[in-house]
Amino acid sequence: MSEKTTQSWTDDPQPLLRAGEGFRLDDVDPKSTPGYDGNKKSGRQDLKTSVPELADLQERLFAAHHDEESGPAVLLVLQAMDTAGKGGIVRHVVGSVDPQGVELASFKAPTKKELAHDFLWRIRPRVPGPGMIGVFDRSHYEDVLIAKVRGLADGKEIGRRYKAINAFEAELAEAGVRIIKVMLHISPDEQKDRLMERLDRPDKYWKYNPSDVDERLLWPDYMKAYQAVFEATSTEIAPWYVVPGNRKWYARLAIQRLLLNALRTIDPQWPGADFDIEIERERLAES
Amino acid sequence: MSEKTTQSWTDDPQPLLRAGEGFRLDDVDPKSTPGYDGNKKSGRQDLKTSVPELADLQERLFAAHHDEESGPAVLLVLQAMDTAGKGGIVRHVVGSVDPQGVELASFKAPTKKELAHDFLWRIRPRVPGPGMIGVFDRSHYEDVLIAKVRGLADGKEIGRRYKAINAFEAELAEAGVRIIKVMLHISPDEQKDRLMERLDRPDKYWKYNPSDVDERLLWPDYMKAYQAVFEATSTEIAPWYVVPGNRKWYARLAIQRLLLNALRTIDPQWPGADFDIEIERERLAES
Repeated sequence: MSEKTTQSWTDDPQPLLRAGEGFRLDDVDPKSTPGYDGNKKSGRQDLKTSVPELADLQERLFAAHHDEESGPAVLLVLQAMDTAGKGGIVRHVVGSVDPQGVELASFKAPTKKELAHDFLWRIRPRVPGPGMIGVFDRSHYEDVLIAKVRGLADGKEIGRRYKAINAFEAELAEAGVRIIKVMLHISPDEQKDRLMERLDRPDKYWKYNPSDVDERLLWPDYMKAYQAVFEATSTEIAPWYVVPGNRKWYARLAIQRLLLNALRTIDPQWPGADFDIEIERERLAES
Repeated sequence: MSEKTTQSWTDDPQPLLRAGEGFRLDDVDPKSTPGYDGNKKSGRQDLKTSVPELADLQERLFAAHHDEESGPAVLLVLQAMDTAGKGGIVRHVVGSVDPQGVELASFKAPTKKELAHDFLWRIRPRVPGPGMIGVFDRSHYEDVLIAKVRGLADGKEIGRRYKAINAFEAELAEAGVRIIKVMLHISPDEQKDRLMERLDRPDKYWKYNPSDVDERLLWPDYMKAYQAVFEATSTEIAPWYVVPGNRKWYARLAIQRLLLNALRTIDPQWPGADFDIEIERERLAES
């Protein structure tokens, strides 16, 4: 952990945010800032300070592995209630590294064609290749969240899907994909304020959908469905992290840190020359 | 044109860079900065100054059109000799807007499967959808550049491809895609310096390929092939721009400006509410 990146961190947030054994979503305060002692101003500054390291690690990952048939990759899965700030994570955290090394997949309500296949069918082709950072803006977890809350699948089918997800993620991990699953957690009041803002600003109307309120009315059911997801799918190889989201600056900083930790663990190295440097210098000089 | 974005521009660079009637690639000085009176420092500052406008226009384009079946999009085609700085354009210009509104396609040497199809087969699915900014890092033009220089296709076939390209691009323009085709133009000496740097720095080895020198030895043939491409495919609806690339800061600034101009012409507007705002305020307040 380099000194530059830890100005206002008191602890590595990763274990604090992890949905492990005995985790209760109800106990998480969406306004809290686990492991961080600073404020909005220092948070923004610390986010900026870590960009060079994140960009360097991303470039190394890409350089070392993007041409390989198999190799390490990172997959950030983002799930949340509406307005929680997924877009801001993509823009301000993921957007700070080279777009050439990022694969972004946004999963909307499945199409008729997608529904005709198993729920993982549309997910598999979007898994990041070696050397890449993949981001899922919503994911296969919709199929055990909205599907459960809305009764689109019965309990037995939801149970089958949990197992299928765990098997799928184990397969990815085996192939070298480090999976970071994040639930951005805001409070219902915060969501109300953010939705209201969308109704107050003509440049935000496009982000508002009347169905957002319908989903909002099911808030307790969604929280139960998330809790069940954590219990069924927060595994050793693909743990869930619940990131308090009322303070956008904290969520961005925390997720940047989860990415940094994953990349530091991969510790990608600049690949050596697979050519004779001296010969190439001569060829180039003569050209 | 807002005042903020024109500090050191003396002229709109777009007409100055355009490969129009009578254009000669030989006449372009790769060190020049057409339409711009500043230096590296002011160039970097001016690039930064225009980011908010570019990001705002990009967000409007996305908001207004990304859910439509058809509608405006922007396609930036980047072609260049090795080391000219395509990656820097993607990172520093395109990378300054929301990644969710960008579709990046990088075209390498075609696979066996791709070669079994017409050369446009792999290109078509990568055309940006409505509301998106697409970037082609290399493109269908490889099939009339390296293909010509390396004799992978005869003169008749190259002629057929020019026509197929013009028909394809006319079809895209008809569908609302604004096409900006850019050749980043560096000098052979500048390329030599940049390749040499890749041989001097272990963190750059991965960017070096001995075949770069082979291609470099064919420089005059490539310049002839580019000249022929401009003559055959710099059309009204999809003109070519030759952007001097020895000064990276200028190339970035100029291409940012081409993107700004295209987006300003589309002039995307925030979409109106397709719901009753008052009713939604009430529903939300009660929720």
